[in-house]
Amino acid sequence: MLSHGAGGQQSAAFIKRIILKYFGNPVLNSLEDAALLKNTPPDIAFTTDSFVVDPVFFPGGNIGDLAVCGTVNDLAVRGARPKYISLSLILEEGLAFADLKKILAAAAARAKEAGVTVACGDTKVVPRGKCDKIFINTAGIGHMLKNAAISPANIRVGDIVIASGALGGHSLAVMNARHKLGIKADLKTDSAPLNKMTAALIEALGPRVKAMRDITRGGLSTVLNELAGKRAGFEIEEQKIPVLPAARATAALLGLDILDMANEGSIVCVLSPDAAERALRIMRADKYGKNAQIIGRAVEGGKVLLATALGVHRLLRPPLGDVLPRIC
Amino acid sequence: MLSHGAGGQQSAAFIKRIILKYFGNPVLNSLEDAALLKNTPPDIAFTTDSFVVDPVFFPGGNIGDLAVCGTVNDLAVRGARPKYISLSLILEEGLAFADLKKILAAAAARAKEAGVTVACGDTKVVPRGKCDKIFINTAGIGHMLKNAAISPANIRVGDIVIASGALGGHSLAVMNARHKLGIKADLKTDSAPLNKMTAALIEALGPRVKAMRDITRGGLSTVLNELAGKRAGFEIEEQKIPVLPAARATAALLGLDILDMANEGSIVCVLSPDAAERALRIMRADKYGKNAQIIGRAVEGGKVLLATALGVHRLLRPPLGDVLPRIC
Repeated sequence: MLSHGAGGQQSAAFIKRIILKYFGNPVLNSLEDAALLKNTPPDIAFTTDSFVVDPVFFPGGNIGDLAVCGTVNDLAVRGARPKYISLSLILEEGLAFADLKKILAAAAARAKEAGVTVACGDTKVVPRGKCDKIFINTAGIGHMLKNAAISPANIRVGDIVIASGALGGHSLAVMNARHKLGIKADLKTDSAPLNKMTAALIEALGPRVKAMRDITRGGLSTVLNELAGKRAGFEIEEQKIPVLPAARATAALLGLDILDMANEGSIVCVLSPDAAERALRIMRADKYGKNAQIIGRAVEGGKVLLATALGVHRLLRPPLGDVLPRIC
Repeated sequence: MLSHGAGGQQSAAFIKRIILKYFGNPVLNSLEDAALLKNTPPDIAFTTDSFVVDPVFFPGGNIGDLAVCGTVNDLAVRGARPKYISLSLILEEGLAFADLKKILAAAAARAKEAGVTVACGDTKVVPRGKCDKIFINTAGIGHMLKNAAISPANIRVGDIVIASGALGGHSLAVMNARHKLGIKADLKTDSAPLNKMTAALIEALGPRVKAMRDITRGGLSTVLNELAGKRAGFEIEEQKIPVLPAARATAALLGLDILDMANEGSIVCVLSPDAAERALRIMRADKYGKNAQIIGRAVEGGKVLLATALGVHRLLRPPLGDVLPRIC
């Protein structure tokens, strides 16, 4: 009901009975206008993301765990240890409590897995038809890892590019669910918190980890183009890119390019060549990095080239617009 | 268009041409997945709020400056100096660029006034009819003021309660605009950044400032009930509460209670009695505190009592539900 977001007694009851049940902790429980975070180191990372995925439930996850993993991963790839997140809900009047509880339970489970504390939050309710079931914003604060020196400006010709996970599952699972395509392939989101894997990489390899990005909106093609700069571009071998067979077949069927698609539990990283083998071992030892592959290397020029199976090189550009909107 | 939020080339152009134009700064310009904040002190405050106000333009402001002031004030009343905010937009497809620019310009002006840096952001676009023009989330990080020792647990019988501003303008201005009531009274939002006033109070009075709250959703009645505890309640003199004449007349006409209404530029604070006169002088010297008044004091018992003009005492309870939803 609208009154659950209006700040009166019903808001207070909603927060105590629902929110604190899933997320209660000493920082949040004080319910002040702002949370007090102590023992903060001098260098922190700060990020935000709003999640509007449609539908809110899809194979392998829902908007709740997506909202936690997305912000955790944005901090992780910056070289930070995610510590605190905020959780701000915009609810459509009439959203079933059972659905909300499922979403919050999934968010709480992922927050626990990632080791982040929900420090503050907000709840608004808008009339029916003024949002689409639920939108969630999470902002996050991470403590920079001491050994991190991540900067795309450090990328040099000869550096190695690794993709951590199999691509395509998230976007295609959401699309299949949204448009009721009825495709019976094993498609599900890869949504997962990657902060343990990224921390292990940085702790072991320090400044030899030069860039990390989670392969979200715009897909691998966008991320690589963002990392390509004046000093180096990339040459990627199409055959080495880890893609699940079900995703490959579904994308081919639909005429879509997996390299333009958002993923929620896969990263690309660029490392010194001498760190490549160790990085691969570390990533493959993590449950979310089993499919890690060296997919290419940094080359002269600022472009991103894709070497296809037939040996042809084509320019890999970011997609112009909406491959698939509302994917996160 | 949907593609402006899909992460491809159009998203990138939108961010460079629009977002960086209004909010560009060295931290934001790097456009990494997370912003790196250096020289952070050990104690910080962290808060978040989503803004869904309807309509998005109203007398005296719009959703953009509201989103900045709201988060700035949540940090300010916690005893922090607001330093960084995030800005996350959920846009309805078809929102006019001219309207968006007005909103962002207002947000940028308030961020400048408050001295906060927009450190990170996000933009999503949802199809027509899936949100209501624009929703904005701002999260904020503040550096705790050294002299701050704000805790409602420190409130003792005899402490003084001050309200900083004239109440009622924001809610009634929004209501008048939303329902096209056509009331010709001088009603406008009080939305303003109060961090300079709160910092001046804390720097001068330190631990004698025991509690501060901005009087937002749920109004003065909710805020006072949240501050009332086991050790003390409050006795408030109705006649002393600063209310603008136009707001008083309009509320009477509509049969609404101003004490249940949200404000966006007014705070209540509880101080040691020996600090009251100095606090009043400091607040009245601030352009947003000119109407500051001592409105009551902390008394035995955990209740909030309202002494009316006729000398009757009534129990002041928080509103049950929605006096006016989507007010911020």
